Amino acid sequence: MVNRGDGPDAGAADFVERLLAPAVGALRPPTALSPLPFDLNAGVPDAATLPARDLAEAARRALERDPAGALTYGGALGYEPLRAWIAERQSAETGVALTAANVTLTSGSAHAIDNLAATFLGPGDVVITPAPTYPGAVRAFRARGARVAPVPQDSDGIDPGALAEALRRLEAAGAPAKLVYVVANYDNPSGSTLPWERRTELAALARGHGALIVEDDAYAGIDLDGPPPRPLFAAAGGRGILRVGTFSKTIATGLRVGWITAAPSIVERLSFMRFDNGASPFAQRTVYEYLSAGGYDAHVAVLRDLYRERRDVSARALSELCGAHVTFRRPAGGFFHWLRLSGGLRAPAVVAAAAHEGVAVTPGANYYPDPGARPPGAPPPGERGESELRLVYSAHPPATLREAIARFAGALSRVAAGAPPPAHRPPPVL
Amino acid sequence: MVNRGDGPDAGAADFVERLLAPAVGALRPPTALSPLPFDLNAGVPDAATLPARDLAEAARRALERDPAGALTYGGALGYEPLRAWIAERQSAETGVALTAANVTLTSGSAHAIDNLAATFLGPGDVVITPAPTYPGAVRAFRARGARVAPVPQDSDGIDPGALAEALRRLEAAGAPAKLVYVVANYDNPSGSTLPWERRTELAALARGHGALIVEDDAYAGIDLDGPPPRPLFAAAGGRGILRVGTFSKTIATGLRVGWITAAPSIVERLSFMRFDNGASPFAQRTVYEYLSAGGYDAHVAVLRDLYRERRDVSARALSELCGAHVTFRRPAGGFFHWLRLSGGLRAPAVVAAAAHEGVAVTPGANYYPDPGARPPGAPPPGERGESELRLVYSAHPPATLREAIARFAGALSRVAAGAPPPAHRPPPVL
Repeated sequence: MVNRGDGPDAGAADFVERLLAPAVGALRPPTALSPLPFDLNAGVPDAATLPARDLAEAARRALERDPAGALTYGGALGYEPLRAWIAERQSAETGVALTAANVTLTSGSAHAIDNLAATFLGPGDVVITPAPTYPGAVRAFRARGARVAPVPQDSDGIDPGALAEALRRLEAAGAPAKLVYVVANYDNPSGSTLPWERRTELAALARGHGALIVEDDAYAGIDLDGPPPRPLFAAAGGRGILRVGTFSKTIATGLRVGWITAAPSIVERLSFMRFDNGASPFAQRTVYEYLSAGGYDAHVAVLRDLYRERRDVSARALSELCGAHVTFRRPAGGFFHWLRLSGGLRAPAVVAAAAHEGVAVTPGANYYPDPGARPPGAPPPGERGESELRLVYSAHPPATLREAIARFAGALSRVAAGAPPPAHRPPPVL
Repeated sequence: MVNRGDGPDAGAADFVERLLAPAVGALRPPTALSPLPFDLNAGVPDAATLPARDLAEAARRALERDPAGALTYGGALGYEPLRAWIAERQSAETGVALTAANVTLTSGSAHAIDNLAATFLGPGDVVITPAPTYPGAVRAFRARGARVAPVPQDSDGIDPGALAEALRRLEAAGAPAKLVYVVANYDNPSGSTLPWERRTELAALARGHGALIVEDDAYAGIDLDGPPPRPLFAAAGGRGILRVGTFSKTIATGLRVGWITAAPSIVERLSFMRFDNGASPFAQRTVYEYLSAGGYDAHVAVLRDLYRERRDVSARALSELCGAHVTFRRPAGGFFHWLRLSGGLRAPAVVAAAAHEGVAVTPGANYYPDPGARPPGAPPPGERGESELRLVYSAHPPATLREAIARFAGALSRVAAGAPPPAHRPPPVL
């Protein structure tokens, strides 16, 4: 008999603690926004560009045209015309003939990753990710009991040599990797884009070792220097690969409409391993009506111009004001600068000093699957994010970015000058 | 090296098969609609009552009032005013003082069950469910590697004596139940409603054995004979219990807005163990604007009248036309008749004969966690659903129900007369 006190929460914490799934202890906290005035931590799109009026109109049309369709369970795969729209676009882009049978709709790309984790991962299974990588994917993999094997990436993304070595090592150890996860375009957090040669190498390596590739293309469309190399999906000829997409970055994160493109046999299994009675047909049909109205490509072009300006303004400010303390490679798209601290500066101290200036940036360690553990022979601190930072340029207009980066520069100078770090708890990541 | 042929799907099936998570093999197929003309299989609300115009207006207001709020990530817990609205309602209903901190929003109640399964269940953990029970919950539990221990229910729901025995037995075996799952009101599939005495007994038993109760209240509001007993949540004083709710049955299944009410310490853990970047703020705010417009209670009252008529029409038709072959207890709410076949009729034969008449009903075995296995000493077939059927009265108007049940009666007579069953694959369940 457990004593739970007499309020709805009194004593409940202990009781709950004892019943938690083992996976709970294996995960780091999920994402959140920063309360600081200059939030360069949250990887969110610009709020002013959200096509709210067009979406209201699209929702109205979706509900008017087929109220029962928009408001009743839409099945595990989702709205067929939207799946066909995605398939058609991706056929053109990848050169692989795709139909609606190749596409399953999810509640955003985060849920897509959860869905594929449920389908392919059980306790002890191994997933290769780059290091650094997107922590949301790591959480979803570990929640299924999977083990994450990080492979270093450089400014061109995951290193094929290191990947080959990891695949061989895991196979030799009797625990071959089931999945290889990458954000090939405009990586979160590193901003890196995998060159075409690396894509073909990665595809050949995964195929050779019987691993499925997960190509998370969450930043697709946010091309700031022209189109990226053809998708990994194309390099793999559409075989042994799951490509994750979303309308979050090109329309709105609040819709929660994402998808997975894969062979029909995989799509079938993905639809079997979901537990949500399907994603929202209301949201899916609203998106479809929005797309059908014809303004989507023009909207994405506007976003590109907007984010390009922000990238360039922030890159210039970083070079001019912070050049003594950071190095970085200008990303070809997406939302992120990945900064390497020079002169022995440590990320936690810089993050704390920046917070003191009202600026939220994210410590690099948040993007390394295992920043805490450092077994004998492991890479030095620098490679585990202790001298790296992520800085988001997508969410704020140029003037705000300049002001935030000027404050950030002040923080860097103070840390470099050896000023004692102010007390501060680092913000969570997004 | 795996040969995957030369099309996107050629040879992929084998490759995929080998990589599937172990849980895939432990699950039965998910829900789906029937293609038959008289679908008494899908447990869906009436399509004509969907408040499409009001929801279009609500969506417009949500997008106009706070476009960035409606269209940007809304956090793991979800829109605070909607959580507060739910808490206020449930405070009045349960007598437990609740605030927004007691409520977390999910993508429908199906995702709520997945969320709590992720939070509390790992491989080998035990969940008690009634037998029969909702198969969607069983799938979500088993996907986390949990074991389901079924406890018989009668026409008043789960039997407290059998529950006490199961809890003791599991504890003695060193595998105490972590969760006790029930649909206390208008159960899917049995239509049973747990009397207040059983609710207090269940609450005491779960507390005594250190198990959390999951009260799935998906049919809340669909009260056809006045209000049901006070919630299990009230019987438990809000302690050691998670109450799952949804707007699917009272507004629309296509919105995918559900929630879990629990102690704040539990809500915090639930929000930690989700992998969707939060549910849709667009859908949540659309629902909130709809509720704020003030027509919700009147709408639910209309639904009650509508479903009451359908329940009564169908009950009358079943008694008059099928009384020789089935017995049932008229449910006090919800969507379902649970029929017991008399005279040795077997459900699979009746389902097949009904399908031949164009009528989809669901075999009882679909609702038993383990209908196939029958170890020595196990209950006789009747208790495993082989002489039971679920028949949905919610989705069709009275005339259609009468026609469908007349056809169903013909099927029963033919099976009773020993006519050979036509070839047919039984439809999937919803």
